[in-house]
Amino acid sequence: MAKRPLILATNDDGINAPGLKYLVSIVSQIGDVVIVAPDSAKSATSQAITINSPLYVSKSNYHLKSKLEYQLSGTPADCVKFGVNEILEKKPDLCVSGINHGANSSINALYSGTIGAAIEAAIQGVPAVGFSVHDYSWDAKFSHLEKFIKSIILNVLNMKLPANVVLNVNFPRSKVKGLKICRQANTRWEEKFVIRKNPMGKIYYWLTGDFINNDNSNETDEYAIKNGYGSIVPIKFDLTAKDYIHELEKWEFND
Amino acid sequence: MAKRPLILATNDDGINAPGLKYLVSIVSQIGDVVIVAPDSAKSATSQAITINSPLYVSKSNYHLKSKLEYQLSGTPADCVKFGVNEILEKKPDLCVSGINHGANSSINALYSGTIGAAIEAAIQGVPAVGFSVHDYSWDAKFSHLEKFIKSIILNVLNMKLPANVVLNVNFPRSKVKGLKICRQANTRWEEKFVIRKNPMGKIYYWLTGDFINNDNSNETDEYAIKNGYGSIVPIKFDLTAKDYIHELEKWEFND
Repeated sequence: MAKRPLILATNDDGINAPGLKYLVSIVSQIGDVVIVAPDSAKSATSQAITINSPLYVSKSNYHLKSKLEYQLSGTPADCVKFGVNEILEKKPDLCVSGINHGANSSINALYSGTIGAAIEAAIQGVPAVGFSVHDYSWDAKFSHLEKFIKSIILNVLNMKLPANVVLNVNFPRSKVKGLKICRQANTRWEEKFVIRKNPMGKIYYWLTGDFINNDNSNETDEYAIKNGYGSIVPIKFDLTAKDYIHELEKWEFND
Repeated sequence: MAKRPLILATNDDGINAPGLKYLVSIVSQIGDVVIVAPDSAKSATSQAITINSPLYVSKSNYHLKSKLEYQLSGTPADCVKFGVNEILEKKPDLCVSGINHGANSSINALYSGTIGAAIEAAIQGVPAVGFSVHDYSWDAKFSHLEKFIKSIILNVLNMKLPANVVLNVNFPRSKVKGLKICRQANTRWEEKFVIRKNPMGKIYYWLTGDFINNDNSNETDEYAIKNGYGSIVPIKFDLTAKDYIHELEKWEFND
């Protein structure tokens, strides 16, 4: 790529998150970065979009390494739609989302606003990568990720992703031994709702849970991360269970 | 099934939506229905879950045909998690979500809270079907759907869905010629952000758009609905683009 690529950056932890700041510091070495990110934390918003309320946008300047920077009152997927269609004059060459403070491997990808934004970018025709580190702390360390992020991004820019594939990249909390191509582990959460009373005496519930991984394969993202590797799962947004169509065609609907 | 099945019902239009009321009136002919639905409209919330704020729950009585009925201050996926883990004493035999007032065919499935709830149910180990009608009106007609909904539900209960497959069912606005097994059409929205000023003079944006279908196959959900059929797309929540893993393994990461 002769010219510097145009890169749209977003996340779901909000525009002031250290993970986004670090990601921008890395990708700005490769291309011109424009940030459009939520004005507040939007964790676990999946691919939600805002259709029943207005969106407010303002310039911000948290990130010295970006060319332009906007914060939006919407979701991560809103940010991508708004960035591509309202802010940028040409379609970006790449969208990066993250670095999320916390795991988006296995089933967590479905709930993730970070991944929702990356999928939205692919739908908009923009190659996209979601990055996450397995550390929920606001003070998570990122410097061990630099060479891996650069390598992935250069590959995406050079090798071209198919239009319907997004990369979901997860890194261990500390030292990374290398990168592994994986499939999404088949996991689940065992939900626990904590019951409390608010100061007015009214009962409320808070969603928590234990993460259960019964998928023992060594081909999964959970396996890779547990063993010190960064995982790369190619994901797609055609949800069709193609293998099952033939089976379903045998059902009798008496229609 | 000798005993009457236990059926969890939810939606994303909110507990007072006519589409949910109609769906409950049909499925209550087949089983015992417990409703756990959002206390207000939660359209386009995808599979978002509430992790950073409390959830309030209260009994309600909008739906005469249900055994029990709760409204929750969260998303459709929250309702399923809460219903399965806090309300119901045993795992339900089925989860139905909808009937959504508006299309959840093709790419719309990704944004849909109706489908987010159905996918969440499958993750919880509960067979699930999301129903939608291609009519956004609150006064949408549903009576033409009765025999098709019954037929689909009886099939799901008798034939057993695999643990990782959910049915996304969409119906035309009026007369239904029959049911077709389909794949998700490859479509997109061409976003348009309407710019307005609020009463305080501050600029805001409102997301709108035109729906673009460049997928000309006769195997898609959009094709079926356009031609007067109800579409059934089996969808899965393992997002891995398995076909692309081999290609990605050729990339050189220099790690």
